[in-house]
Amino acid sequence: MSISPEYKKILDRAIDAIHQRTFFSQYPEHPSPKIYGENADSEGQEKFKSHLNKPFSEIDQQRAEKWFGEEESPYLQENLGIEYPFFETETLIERANESFSAWRKASPEDRANVLIDSLERVKSRFFEIAYATMHTTGQGYMMAFQASGPHAADRALEAIAMGYYEQKRFPESTLWEKPMGKYNLTLRKSWKPIPKGISLVIGCSTFPTWNSVPGIYASLVTGNPVIVKPHPGAVLPIAIFISEITAAMKDAGYSVDTCQLAVDSLKDPVTLALAEHSDIKLIDFTGNSEFGSTLERLTGKNVFTEKTGVNSIIVDSGNDLDKIAQNIAFSITLYSGQMCTAPQNIFVPKDGINTPEGNVSFDEFVEKITSNINGLVDNPKAGPFVLGAIQNQATCNRVEGVSKLHAKVVLESRTIENPMFKNARIATPAILVTDAQNEEEFSKELFGPIAFIIKTNDTKESVAIAKKLAIEQGAISCGAYTTDEEKKEFIAEEMSLAATPVSFNLTGAIYVNQHATFSDFHVTGGNPAGNASFTNPEYVVRRFTWVGTREPVSSN
Amino acid sequence: MSISPEYKKILDRAIDAIHQRTFFSQYPEHPSPKIYGENADSEGQEKFKSHLNKPFSEIDQQRAEKWFGEEESPYLQENLGIEYPFFETETLIERANESFSAWRKASPEDRANVLIDSLERVKSRFFEIAYATMHTTGQGYMMAFQASGPHAADRALEAIAMGYYEQKRFPESTLWEKPMGKYNLTLRKSWKPIPKGISLVIGCSTFPTWNSVPGIYASLVTGNPVIVKPHPGAVLPIAIFISEITAAMKDAGYSVDTCQLAVDSLKDPVTLALAEHSDIKLIDFTGNSEFGSTLERLTGKNVFTEKTGVNSIIVDSGNDLDKIAQNIAFSITLYSGQMCTAPQNIFVPKDGINTPEGNVSFDEFVEKITSNINGLVDNPKAGPFVLGAIQNQATCNRVEGVSKLHAKVVLESRTIENPMFKNARIATPAILVTDAQNEEEFSKELFGPIAFIIKTNDTKESVAIAKKLAIEQGAISCGAYTTDEEKKEFIAEEMSLAATPVSFNLTGAIYVNQHATFSDFHVTGGNPAGNASFTNPEYVVRRFTWVGTREPVSSN
Repeated sequence: MSISPEYKKILDRAIDAIHQRTFFSQYPEHPSPKIYGENADSEGQEKFKSHLNKPFSEIDQQRAEKWFGEEESPYLQENLGIEYPFFETETLIERANESFSAWRKASPEDRANVLIDSLERVKSRFFEIAYATMHTTGQGYMMAFQASGPHAADRALEAIAMGYYEQKRFPESTLWEKPMGKYNLTLRKSWKPIPKGISLVIGCSTFPTWNSVPGIYASLVTGNPVIVKPHPGAVLPIAIFISEITAAMKDAGYSVDTCQLAVDSLKDPVTLALAEHSDIKLIDFTGNSEFGSTLERLTGKNVFTEKTGVNSIIVDSGNDLDKIAQNIAFSITLYSGQMCTAPQNIFVPKDGINTPEGNVSFDEFVEKITSNINGLVDNPKAGPFVLGAIQNQATCNRVEGVSKLHAKVVLESRTIENPMFKNARIATPAILVTDAQNEEEFSKELFGPIAFIIKTNDTKESVAIAKKLAIEQGAISCGAYTTDEEKKEFIAEEMSLAATPVSFNLTGAIYVNQHATFSDFHVTGGNPAGNASFTNPEYVVRRFTWVGTREPVSSN
Repeated sequence: MSISPEYKKILDRAIDAIHQRTFFSQYPEHPSPKIYGENADSEGQEKFKSHLNKPFSEIDQQRAEKWFGEEESPYLQENLGIEYPFFETETLIERANESFSAWRKASPEDRANVLIDSLERVKSRFFEIAYATMHTTGQGYMMAFQASGPHAADRALEAIAMGYYEQKRFPESTLWEKPMGKYNLTLRKSWKPIPKGISLVIGCSTFPTWNSVPGIYASLVTGNPVIVKPHPGAVLPIAIFISEITAAMKDAGYSVDTCQLAVDSLKDPVTLALAEHSDIKLIDFTGNSEFGSTLERLTGKNVFTEKTGVNSIIVDSGNDLDKIAQNIAFSITLYSGQMCTAPQNIFVPKDGINTPEGNVSFDEFVEKITSNINGLVDNPKAGPFVLGAIQNQATCNRVEGVSKLHAKVVLESRTIENPMFKNARIATPAILVTDAQNEEEFSKELFGPIAFIIKTNDTKESVAIAKKLAIEQGAISCGAYTTDEEKKEFIAEEMSLAATPVSFNLTGAIYVNQHATFSDFHVTGGNPAGNASFTNPEYVVRRFTWVGTREPVSSN
């Protein structure tokens, strides 16, 4: 087997897009009946419901030691009742080792073929995955569809393409002829990309497929078997993904144990034991900074992390402050601030913001932000869908605790009604105002719908604090609004030294939270928010080594 | 300033060679008067002598806190009396930080131009560096010239080329147009490679330029200032290199502190304090496994190591055992086994080796190896020059200790006369014979002129042990002799799983010790012998991050 012409075309288009960084998407992001079929949505919903209160046995994992699950819908605040098979660490490692030999011997073409095939299969399950994502993460329908379906599949394809490209970068074999004066010394040399070993991919509770598939596909395309350990609260979306990966594997004659699901419970976590196993050579992690840093310190592993950070928006000047406030308000509200790219700290100069119509004061701007948030969350056609639900009760507790911070709460968090899910766990954004000096309050990540508007002396100070926080706490995104070219350059330059990408002057239907596959590197790897980047060359080249052989052509 | 057409041509040729992995060399390896000038050798020797018993003040490092040096010639067993300027860690870091801003703002073209310029300058000092290398490392003249001069310059060029290529891989700027149905959402996006920060390059005593310049040039071309901390016993060769790097920097208007020399003494080492400094973001290290592993465990750094390993030769069958024995004997003897690529363990089946003329017994083969070594070291036209001298007295002590090992010494180490250097520290190879079961004796690295010939049940066992040692102890090279295609594939496959390159059936003027720039990856990074590889993409991409900015084209 090799790669089908159709899949080769997809691969080549993806490789081109990566290197041009222009717009490309293999998997349409609109849940449109025209694209996905008239009944795709309702069938997907039915399929999701059919999983409830049952063992999930779609992945062909033999002889489970026990079955359990603890997923709960943030919309229903009820257990989903889905049970997954549990295996001891040694069983998972042993099966991964058994699957390794055939998979590593497959060519990069073979592997890309199987993996693109798996994405094409997953495509028919995007709606089912969307509902699974809603009822584990609390994401709104549209985000759940896009992030867990097409956007995740595009990120997976990006990882396949980058991994394939790097494995084909050097010749398989060449003649090396060194002139020695009277004769040429001639060696036949060959090189092979050799996979590093078993890969462990550790998922998070908020983006169970989007944050996990890049690591899964990057490891698989470079020949490493994968064990996927999702967050106990968000298993189903990635379990569906894995069931299609393993189905594609099986059809192509590879072991289904090349990509295994490993579940655990919050009470009895298995992650560290798995990560520390000497056969685990690659670890991908999305989650909290403390555990991520523990993993980064493990020796004898290549560890790829996306941890937490504190994202800033720097407001200096603008042409239309209403549009700016609208854009920022949406970014704060979207999925209740539970995105790793959501802004937390909005820096505004104490003397206000210059516009063509004159100066807008700090307080006026604060009012614009809060009224835009209120307008959004109170709009029954938008609020419930943009907010989604709160994945974890701890986030609600954190939001409730903001009144105890040394900052003025100018907008209190409250709940709104979701007409479809009366019992949904909802918290609208809390907005706090404070001074730049009060760094202690806003310098930590306060995950969830909590944002500060921070009064600074001037934009220079805004930038200095945003940069410092990015260097010390990490940052994944940064927004900036300025009409001054010199300041724009200054902001870009300073934030680049904190390895933080900057989105300038976003208004309308594009938000600082969004990172486009094939174009935006997600996380730079250069600050404490994470050491890995979707998908730069480093993300794939660290998963294999180049090993050569050589022999004189007229050998003895 | 940008890159000169002449240097751009060199750069492009190097980039092509890297990707084709065919023979290429920018700097001729023959110390020929026709290439380097009639008086180049004698002038180089004079220049070397002029450094003796003086402060080395060629590098423009201001306000030294003190001056000292402790280099000793292994050929003369006398101190060289050269003193180097010492600076406190904080001074070095401060100066590196001050130089950083201008250097990181230089374009990849600018930086490549300065760095290639430095190599062209170094070219005029190859002979001086050769003598400096002889009298610090103990290398023979030819190796000292080649390894520290042209081969090092080629490896430096390779790092420049790979670093330049990766920085130019993605567009500086592009229009991203996303179809939104009725309109296109258009963003102007830009990307910059942002250097990680100050780079520390830690040298070794045996290859003071060859092992250090890849890290120095890889860090510099990607915009990071560098602090070079040589081994206290081998400073002069790299100091000359640095003086030309800084001269090229100065001429181009950059701070000489962009590449600083940091010296210490064996008694008062500064390496760990430097390495642990929070501003040090990149560390390159060549040296012992223990310290290398300590460095690998440091957090918040990217660490590139070449440590130690145990290299094997697997003898199965061959066409001409005399040529094979000659080749292996030379590899063991070359620079008295003080190369990281030198073989230590030669595995031979107990039933002997098949040849077209019939079976050659284990004992006969042992005799061929020892007689070839004797022939080589006792040849006054070859012995002293191939052996060189022993860099460190500890290596002589180790060689003397082999009689205490549980293995039969079939060839004792002795000294021979070097007619030019009567006082040279010389030890010819000790050859020991033992059984495969006696793994405890041969499973550690015994650095220096010590080799084991190990009796195994069969080639399968030879391979199994060589693979196990490579996985557990690391390996940088592996030689194998077989006329059986199936066994060849088996050996290549098994050793590839230990991330060890295999040279098959080497005879004549090519040795397992040699790794050719632009073609052979030196160290794979996939076993304990080191986590870095000269020069794969990973070696450069981990030294910078991609940071983007984006803005709507019709911005608000």
